[in-house]
Amino acid sequence: MRYARVSVGGRAVWGRVGESEIELLSGSPIEGDPQVTGAVERATALWLPPVVPPVFYAVGYNYPRHIAHAKAATPERPEVGYRANNALTGHGSPIVKPVEVQGRFEAEPELVAVIGRTIRHATHEEARKAVFGWTIGNDVSARAWQHQDRTFWRSKNSDTFKPMGPWIETDVDALAQTTTLRVNGSERARFPTGDMVHDPFDYLVEMTRHLTLHPGDVLWMGAESTCQLEPGDTVDVEISGIGVLSNPVHLEGNRA
Amino acid sequence: MRYARVSVGGRAVWGRVGESEIELLSGSPIEGDPQVTGAVERATALWLPPVVPPVFYAVGYNYPRHIAHAKAATPERPEVGYRANNALTGHGSPIVKPVEVQGRFEAEPELVAVIGRTIRHATHEEARKAVFGWTIGNDVSARAWQHQDRTFWRSKNSDTFKPMGPWIETDVDALAQTTTLRVNGSERARFPTGDMVHDPFDYLVEMTRHLTLHPGDVLWMGAESTCQLEPGDTVDVEISGIGVLSNPVHLEGNRA
Repeated sequence: MRYARVSVGGRAVWGRVGESEIELLSGSPIEGDPQVTGAVERATALWLPPVVPPVFYAVGYNYPRHIAHAKAATPERPEVGYRANNALTGHGSPIVKPVEVQGRFEAEPELVAVIGRTIRHATHEEARKAVFGWTIGNDVSARAWQHQDRTFWRSKNSDTFKPMGPWIETDVDALAQTTTLRVNGSERARFPTGDMVHDPFDYLVEMTRHLTLHPGDVLWMGAESTCQLEPGDTVDVEISGIGVLSNPVHLEGNRA
Repeated sequence: MRYARVSVGGRAVWGRVGESEIELLSGSPIEGDPQVTGAVERATALWLPPVVPPVFYAVGYNYPRHIAHAKAATPERPEVGYRANNALTGHGSPIVKPVEVQGRFEAEPELVAVIGRTIRHATHEEARKAVFGWTIGNDVSARAWQHQDRTFWRSKNSDTFKPMGPWIETDVDALAQTTTLRVNGSERARFPTGDMVHDPFDYLVEMTRHLTLHPGDVLWMGAESTCQLEPGDTVDVEISGIGVLSNPVHLEGNRA
């Protein structure tokens, strides 16, 4: 099943995504069993981030080729960081490049696990059962700020730097898929989604030794490759079996 | 006015805190004008974190004596990091020290600004008006993990490591107050709350150059001094004009 959130009359509404329509739901499918309350055309839907997480977790170095390229050490055990909800934006909405950004402005295509249960001290099996579904993230990064600042606050968490969507797919073997990054239709990267140092369940087991995960929390799994973005571009992140997250890039203050 | 959240029959309910009673409210005072729906005794209230923020911002080096003690460089401009909602706990609830924690396990007494309005590109004056009120935070930190890990995920964001409360005070000149840290009633630190490199409004102006702040977002302002905590201790953070945030320290798996 594919679940999304769309804007209807300015309100965020959950929906179940079909071929041509999105059935609107009375509430969140993550924590309940909502009823169908109506429908909207899929072609004209205004997509929102499919969930606004209580905590927004993100993995850094997790793909061997990325680690080798960065000349970083391979993490011996799962370690997690954070991103911020202000930066989230939905499928189809613009990534806005601030006018002050100098140097590399890059896309990072990522698999995202969406948590469906409250878990603490989870086993590997409990971690598997705790994943409600999977979506796609683009961890847009301004490299000069990333190197200058003590934290990732501007480099990775400026408004619109975290496109997520278009929906949560509940029925997919996420680690058996292929991630593809395209700019203006031209392929810039392609890698096996599951070629990770530590898989999502390894992370959930390690994280819940020290913290409680809650329904709606998300875990972004890192990227193998990145590519440069320019205002006027459209960037697509596709994960087979899930979908395509597509966003135009605008320069701040402009429409393209 | 003092606003809190308390647990009533297992539900989180907003309240207005009086001398002996807490008047229960129909909703959040941050975004609306809620009605009084009842009352509970203040003496027996179960206090929750006064807000669960959409984004949980925290300042690192911001007090000159702390910066000198850490032999760090004074930040030339406001830079902000993040903490995680799973770690929040209320006034009176235990800080649980994990059995694996080695070395220093410390309290950091902090002023907290609670945002009341949606702001972007704020002026200093708009930043002042955007603060709904002030509360108190204890940025509990496990130093060995802080030095070992790439992020603060375990060192500062394990469950219960972020006590906040007891309430939000809306009528106080927060920067003219005194912060006092006590363990088992004995004073361990005392400093002028407002003796900061960059004040909260400087932060809000700088942050909103790049991001949108939303009602309920919190900004923890850093600490001048810290002190060691042991299981069995009770740690109080007092900020004059706001109140006292008090929490017992338990060892994981024990009651004390």
